[in-house]
Amino acid sequence: MQAPTGALLSEVARQAGIDLNMPCGGQGRCGRCAVIVQDGAGVRRRSTLRLTPDDLAAGYALACQTVVEGDAVVVIPPQEKIERRLVTDKTAAKVILPFTYDPLWYQSVRLVPLVLDPPSMADQTDDWSRLRRVMSATHDVSDLTADLPTLRRLGTTLREHDWTVTGVVEMDTWDRPDGPPRLVDLLPPGRTEPLWGIAVDIGTTTVSLYLVDLLTGEVSTKAAEYNGQIKRGEDVISRIIYASKNGGLAELQSLVVDTINELIRRAVRRAKIDPSEIYKMTVAGNSTMIHLFLGLPPNSIRLEPFVTTINHPLPVRAGELGINIHPQANVDCLPGVASYVGADISAGVVGSQMCESNALTLFLDVGTNGEMVLGDCDWLISCACSAGPAFEGAGVRDGMRATVGAIEEVWVNSETYEPTYRVIPNPRLEARGQPTPPRGICGSGLISLLSEIFITGVIDKAGNLNFDLGSPRVRQGERGLEYVVAWGDETEHGRDIVITEVDIDNLIRAKGAIYAGFTVLAQSVGIDLAMVERVLIGGSFGQYINVEKAIQIGLLPDLPWEKFHFLGNTALQGALLALLNREYRHRVTETAQKMTYLELSADNTFYEAFTSALFLPHTDLAQFPSVAEVLGVRNET
Amino acid sequence: MQAPTGALLSEVARQAGIDLNMPCGGQGRCGRCAVIVQDGAGVRRRSTLRLTPDDLAAGYALACQTVVEGDAVVVIPPQEKIERRLVTDKTAAKVILPFTYDPLWYQSVRLVPLVLDPPSMADQTDDWSRLRRVMSATHDVSDLTADLPTLRRLGTTLREHDWTVTGVVEMDTWDRPDGPPRLVDLLPPGRTEPLWGIAVDIGTTTVSLYLVDLLTGEVSTKAAEYNGQIKRGEDVISRIIYASKNGGLAELQSLVVDTINELIRRAVRRAKIDPSEIYKMTVAGNSTMIHLFLGLPPNSIRLEPFVTTINHPLPVRAGELGINIHPQANVDCLPGVASYVGADISAGVVGSQMCESNALTLFLDVGTNGEMVLGDCDWLISCACSAGPAFEGAGVRDGMRATVGAIEEVWVNSETYEPTYRVIPNPRLEARGQPTPPRGICGSGLISLLSEIFITGVIDKAGNLNFDLGSPRVRQGERGLEYVVAWGDETEHGRDIVITEVDIDNLIRAKGAIYAGFTVLAQSVGIDLAMVERVLIGGSFGQYINVEKAIQIGLLPDLPWEKFHFLGNTALQGALLALLNREYRHRVTETAQKMTYLELSADNTFYEAFTSALFLPHTDLAQFPSVAEVLGVRNET
Repeated sequence: MQAPTGALLSEVARQAGIDLNMPCGGQGRCGRCAVIVQDGAGVRRRSTLRLTPDDLAAGYALACQTVVEGDAVVVIPPQEKIERRLVTDKTAAKVILPFTYDPLWYQSVRLVPLVLDPPSMADQTDDWSRLRRVMSATHDVSDLTADLPTLRRLGTTLREHDWTVTGVVEMDTWDRPDGPPRLVDLLPPGRTEPLWGIAVDIGTTTVSLYLVDLLTGEVSTKAAEYNGQIKRGEDVISRIIYASKNGGLAELQSLVVDTINELIRRAVRRAKIDPSEIYKMTVAGNSTMIHLFLGLPPNSIRLEPFVTTINHPLPVRAGELGINIHPQANVDCLPGVASYVGADISAGVVGSQMCESNALTLFLDVGTNGEMVLGDCDWLISCACSAGPAFEGAGVRDGMRATVGAIEEVWVNSETYEPTYRVIPNPRLEARGQPTPPRGICGSGLISLLSEIFITGVIDKAGNLNFDLGSPRVRQGERGLEYVVAWGDETEHGRDIVITEVDIDNLIRAKGAIYAGFTVLAQSVGIDLAMVERVLIGGSFGQYINVEKAIQIGLLPDLPWEKFHFLGNTALQGALLALLNREYRHRVTETAQKMTYLELSADNTFYEAFTSALFLPHTDLAQFPSVAEVLGVRNET
Repeated sequence: MQAPTGALLSEVARQAGIDLNMPCGGQGRCGRCAVIVQDGAGVRRRSTLRLTPDDLAAGYALACQTVVEGDAVVVIPPQEKIERRLVTDKTAAKVILPFTYDPLWYQSVRLVPLVLDPPSMADQTDDWSRLRRVMSATHDVSDLTADLPTLRRLGTTLREHDWTVTGVVEMDTWDRPDGPPRLVDLLPPGRTEPLWGIAVDIGTTTVSLYLVDLLTGEVSTKAAEYNGQIKRGEDVISRIIYASKNGGLAELQSLVVDTINELIRRAVRRAKIDPSEIYKMTVAGNSTMIHLFLGLPPNSIRLEPFVTTINHPLPVRAGELGINIHPQANVDCLPGVASYVGADISAGVVGSQMCESNALTLFLDVGTNGEMVLGDCDWLISCACSAGPAFEGAGVRDGMRATVGAIEEVWVNSETYEPTYRVIPNPRLEARGQPTPPRGICGSGLISLLSEIFITGVIDKAGNLNFDLGSPRVRQGERGLEYVVAWGDETEHGRDIVITEVDIDNLIRAKGAIYAGFTVLAQSVGIDLAMVERVLIGGSFGQYINVEKAIQIGLLPDLPWEKFHFLGNTALQGALLALLNREYRHRVTETAQKMTYLELSADNTFYEAFTSALFLPHTDLAQFPSVAEVLGVRNET
């Protein structure tokens, strides 16, 4: 194909409709967009950071860093498809609400029977005023408004159904709690059901959706899918960088809209409904995800002083965003607190019901970033630590996401230092009674592994591997010492699966950042972490953490295990409650407004706390009495 | 080209991009869409009403009435272009306002200087809240809102201009007089001008536009153009019928939008401004024009009981309608009263300042329909008479619009019965000192002619031509008696220009309908027409009427001439006042709300009054004392 001189190969590929994976967002850092240039004369490599001399000799180039300068033949290797292991793709899951649902009381959208007097020569009132008159007289709704597309169907629908219809009316929105009410649609007479809504959590990695019956409050269908933006950047920073490229923002916006539309397609097919019967959408997500979803440039989120365009987005119509539900349905993006404490956290706090109790509570959402909130029903303080994606498997040599083939738990024999592990099974192999060979280690596996090698003394408290153990598992690798978790003959790809000292260092920095966040939050309000009465853990990552091992590496504070509660996707739960109940919707706003935000990058105490946390479990062992006890037992034996 | 069996030739032509004139809206009534079918086998003529046997023999068919049933070769004759004689295409015309303009007091849209504190690590407030904070603190504007496209530019614009910008803010709209205020755009700092608006009157025949400086209140430019919908129907009924055809509504909507965009293009070029500097648009027009402009199906306007979809349209963004001004600018379609008393009349009443005086006033807008309002500052009563398009030159054999070549005034010698006439001149011929040969007779010419032949006795009071005069001007034509106004050797086309008894009958019916309207209005409030203190005549048609002659045929009531005031385009003037002054905007709504509407088609007294008015000047000559006097003088001589 034709391309202008100076175009990046990645842009040319996109124009040719070829989907290149770019997990780093096109920064030349991940090396995943490597292509083979068969005739090297016409291209110039700006960066080859991720390519070895052998790679270069073989013609490899990074598509995101290579510029077209003349004719070139480029071979694009097959792109690795992201495999799924999404647990929430289920039908008719029972979701428990913290209230007895009464749509008339709680729901802003309702079906309203409308019986109009037909016009006559004696009463030539226009259709719209006639409808408003009935709304006012029989439903006490004055000041009704409507969008132009709704008005365009008004006359025909009223006449088709002989002046008896059902109105879909949105009584108010978060930004105008007193209305004005809006006619969203007109349906045939006698319609008392259905009335659907969707709650969506746009995660950086996964987008999750509930299809909800707004009349009963029941979740009819769940669906989840990887965020289609992943191929343009694995973390929010990569995506922000990609968005600042020419056309990047529009592409990311359309990718996430496509993902949501695909989830809607699946959900409505399973529920056997029409997507135009969905009249409301409530969205949670971190601030970057919300910006990208709305097409707002996210650049200022990344640059000091880290501010968003808007923390409390205004309602937008689904049609304006390209979401395939009723085009006049409102899309309500929940409010966030700051650039790195977004609507996923304010919704998560409400979804977790953290504020319903007087107990001093620590709320925690660990993903690429660790966001945390400390408080009770009276006050809330929050912060975000850029833990990095180590616990999501990135930045670790054999790290991977929690999908098929990932080692998710490890046990190390304290005498032989030999490991045993459990792999996320491939259902097809499992059905045939065959074990699933491992491909790598996911977040929970890494926590488990780190704890085991620490407690058994394979590494010391600084994370250094003990080469003197005499175990063949500890060996000198290409880039320093490493511990072999699985030999090549056990693995899917035939290569050894290892954890290196560099990996261990990354993991310690990640857990250190998170624990330092707890410390600073507690210090800022003058309490001790031991006083925390409940730890609520949101996010799908949290669901698989082994608390004991997470405490042993100093990731979680050393509290009795029963104080930890894994709540799953609290952001989605919060979006659900806000979708259903205007009182809960109001609480999300209230939560976002009253939450104090601590900016850690401007905080010296954070840096001190972080440095102290760069040991296993911590420089101050007194903060981890249960771990001290285990270590004491080990040292005695 | 390919066409499905059963398609109308007119549809096929449209798909092929060929613009056929269809003044009757495709009803087969006008005969203007005639085409020549060279091979007749593949088509079927549904109606040939307007074709003679000779036409049929020559292969003629009406495109709007002919169905494709197989292969056919169709020749489309050159389509007559509508020639212009629009008087308002001028630059920098001085328009007088009835108030001293103060934009801060009257104007809803304003330029607001905004100096924001830049964000810092100590103040990470999001951009939107930061802007709202300044709006609230320094401009006392709380509750500010914005459309998504505006928010999408927010962060970039603020940073590009170092946190000092100029906001374009709309403080309120007619449907929400208390706000909320809306940020329409963000401009570079220090912008104190310009701020533009447009006032538009969408006439059935002509669309007129004022480009207005919202800071000074001055009209910078006027522009006018034939409504592009004309080729799809000359009157509102034809357009409504056309709109009900497949794709017809969308086509008519886009035709009028194209016309308005063309006027905007001309106006901004003359004023040397950018169309995106236009931040507000106010629109007047009859109810059908407003419906078509907004894309609302107008069908119910035509069918008993004649109701509109909406009389008080809600504000719509320019971008949603495809109007090429700032896409977030509001388009404010002024409110109407009923299907046939639209926003042109409520705006016209305000534009004419009818209600500013205690004097009993008759307001009149004669076009295809005659709309009239009687009242004073306390009460208003209105009605519409379907006068038909006779006074616009349609339905009269040699009738034409008031363009180049139209006879616009006629004098008849009371002894020889020979006419003298004045023709609307062709400027090119005029420049060379040559007379312009006539092509037909326009409305004012018809009034003048009718009055002259009546007063001179060429016709009697019932409109019958007096064959016994012995004048060669009165002769037996193809379809009855006719009076020759211009011999073929004087005319452009070489054919005689005549008025037939059928034409005369049509004109008498038209003037009778209008006068009957006056009578019913006056009767309904128990007054005599002679009590009327002022007659305000709006509409461009009115500007050319000779009052004396209009009274002599009984079109206008017999009042002293000084009571008649010709105001030109009162609808446009009303739109201008509403654009500039929120108080006047409110008056248009108030006028539309308080105006009583009399539906004449349901009124027996109208039929009686109409029958009585089917004479020249009227059955009851006592109502026309000045005419009686003239006739008395004539009879005495």
